[in-house]
Amino acid sequence: MTLNLDGLLSDRARVRGVDGVIGGLRRQKKDAIPLHYGYPYPDSYPLEEISSAARSSILEDGCESINYGGADLAEEFSRLVMQRLGKRGITCREEEMLVTSGSSQAINLVCSVFVDVGDRVLVEAPSYMGGLNSFRNFGADLVPIEVDELGIRTDELADRLSEWRAAGESMPKVLYSITNFNNPSGCTTCEPRRRELLDLAEEYGFLILEDDAYGELRFEGEDIPPLGAMDDRGVVVHVGSMSKILAPGVRLGWAVADERIIQMMNVHKADGGTSPLARTIVGAYLRETDMDARLEELRAGYRLRRDAAVGAMEEFMPQGCHWTVPEGGYFLWLTIPEGLDSDDMLDDMAEEGVKPLSGRQFYCDGRGARNFRISYSYPEPEAVRTGIELMARVIRRHMEAMEG
Amino acid sequence: MTLNLDGLLSDRARVRGVDGVIGGLRRQKKDAIPLHYGYPYPDSYPLEEISSAARSSILEDGCESINYGGADLAEEFSRLVMQRLGKRGITCREEEMLVTSGSSQAINLVCSVFVDVGDRVLVEAPSYMGGLNSFRNFGADLVPIEVDELGIRTDELADRLSEWRAAGESMPKVLYSITNFNNPSGCTTCEPRRRELLDLAEEYGFLILEDDAYGELRFEGEDIPPLGAMDDRGVVVHVGSMSKILAPGVRLGWAVADERIIQMMNVHKADGGTSPLARTIVGAYLRETDMDARLEELRAGYRLRRDAAVGAMEEFMPQGCHWTVPEGGYFLWLTIPEGLDSDDMLDDMAEEGVKPLSGRQFYCDGRGARNFRISYSYPEPEAVRTGIELMARVIRRHMEAMEG
Repeated sequence: MTLNLDGLLSDRARVRGVDGVIGGLRRQKKDAIPLHYGYPYPDSYPLEEISSAARSSILEDGCESINYGGADLAEEFSRLVMQRLGKRGITCREEEMLVTSGSSQAINLVCSVFVDVGDRVLVEAPSYMGGLNSFRNFGADLVPIEVDELGIRTDELADRLSEWRAAGESMPKVLYSITNFNNPSGCTTCEPRRRELLDLAEEYGFLILEDDAYGELRFEGEDIPPLGAMDDRGVVVHVGSMSKILAPGVRLGWAVADERIIQMMNVHKADGGTSPLARTIVGAYLRETDMDARLEELRAGYRLRRDAAVGAMEEFMPQGCHWTVPEGGYFLWLTIPEGLDSDDMLDDMAEEGVKPLSGRQFYCDGRGARNFRISYSYPEPEAVRTGIELMARVIRRHMEAMEG
Repeated sequence: MTLNLDGLLSDRARVRGVDGVIGGLRRQKKDAIPLHYGYPYPDSYPLEEISSAARSSILEDGCESINYGGADLAEEFSRLVMQRLGKRGITCREEEMLVTSGSSQAINLVCSVFVDVGDRVLVEAPSYMGGLNSFRNFGADLVPIEVDELGIRTDELADRLSEWRAAGESMPKVLYSITNFNNPSGCTTCEPRRRELLDLAEEYGFLILEDDAYGELRFEGEDIPPLGAMDDRGVVVHVGSMSKILAPGVRLGWAVADERIIQMMNVHKADGGTSPLARTIVGAYLRETDMDARLEELRAGYRLRRDAAVGAMEEFMPQGCHWTVPEGGYFLWLTIPEGLDSDDMLDDMAEEGVKPLSGRQFYCDGRGARNFRISYSYPEPEAVRTGIELMARVIRRHMEAMEG
């Protein structure tokens, strides 16, 4: 290598470096109970239906199914997504929706259009590491706002914003929020705080990027309208995905926003179009599927797993530990006593036979040493229970070592 | 909309605006001969094979085929791509290759990692509008370098570089080159100029982004090694794609480069992984397919169409027109007499029943008024001939109007 590569890097790449990347998504050895996967449970993948849809849809739409634009079934995909969004109160015209390669691409496009190196971006603490990394890729100055059991702390947010304004500091451009069943905390932002968020966005002139990957997976309590449905001021970019309600590997998501924002996002997409192959197959699948019935099944499946997780927490976790009790979604957030470090326990836990994720990667400011994200979504309920029992065993041992 | 959206835009989005976007990739009415599509011809899509592969591969690899990482067949895809690259002299380790969502994503990632607003990027004149738009999205200062029948004018390039150095101006970061059967000109960069390019990149410290979408579609003359095979200095990012040798709608491409560059590109990818569904299906398809035999068929198909195109040009085009005679790929570049404007003829041509692309979108500096890109790739040879006859009729009419 004779090039001075460092001298050629963009500012964002130089600021970013190569640290903090999510480790390979390759399959792991199946020798530990996987409480780290944010995946749907294996039985929920409709393999026979998807593979049949794949065969028939390609033949039905012919060449156009694997040409640039896609054909009828690819368009059917968009239509059915809009129909489902409508059921949740998010009505949009074609010009207000963009189909993307997973919600990841939608998040990246918001960064492309709005985020320069050094721009302030507000993120929940804790928040999804994939989202954090997208903002980091664009050199954003991430500012954490606390999340509690009622969601993002709008009081704290209001204080920060008013301090910044008073000090003449630059205002944030975007707030990134996982409103329902937050990844990783499992917490949901209550309706009053949602209204406050919208008011603050309007008052201080920033966009809210609502990541609603888990919104349709509420298995307890009452649905709260997504920000995308409550917004009548054009301050919300609502993003969703097939990943958690069908299968992550189809890489299909969407964004809904003001037409001008969608137009800019589309300009910066420049990807030759979102996979016609995937849209064709999933369009055919959705056409033949009663998604309401499917979602009911999924909710029952995740409720069973959540119950197994919470039951095991109560039964096995030593005193001094506490955890969230999510009403939907995939995750439960465990806090362990002060003085312990979740990173230090991962090896012992793997040895015991369980793999959760430790908390640091979900914070933009180095916190999270006292946390674990437990995904109950993937293993069978009995395995979730056993996994938590094994985690508890290691935590207890570390507590005893600390006290002794 | 209460937001001051313009105030929130990133610098790159502000510079970019929303102009110059490739018009919708939706299907057009089939009432004109499509000489504008850069698509494979319909008979070449192996629909039965792909749809069978789709069905069987999803069942074979199970959930993992539609989970985040993909499984055996998704890995098989990478292995087979590397094997094919090896046959063209491009040997790389796993860490030197990145599978992307079409070559478009590979191009976008090079921009992410290297291009800031205002950075100089060298592009061929003319060049692929999709590539130009990717650089525009990052606010690049595009500098055109002429292309003639022997490819990019390295003498002109050397002059510019040495002038800039003498004047203490900032050096370009990237040169974007379609070395084989340039889109839109059809021209191929000869081997001596390829060596000069590599020398200049080393001397002046810029990267060469080699877009080799058409490299395996030579139907006449001798193959010239791609820059990616000639480069022993780590200055080349070689990108390729399944779009022109299989089907654009699978959205699968790749980049090969120095390991550090690939690592940075992977950091900035942040897309949840390249479609496991597509990699699984195409991995299964490639495993069952003799690609060398398939490529021979494709080359024969494109040669027939090229011959039809060139024959029709000779037969029908009025004096004063000239055109390139490509030895491979999809495109032929027509130059019409001075004083005429290709944009002004598009409506008349559509009326006659033919749709080529006019030249302006292939230049970054407003030129191209005297050019048409003729894609002979998609219609049947007889339709290519008829389309060119219709084009000639309109050109002749405009010439007569001008002279009269």
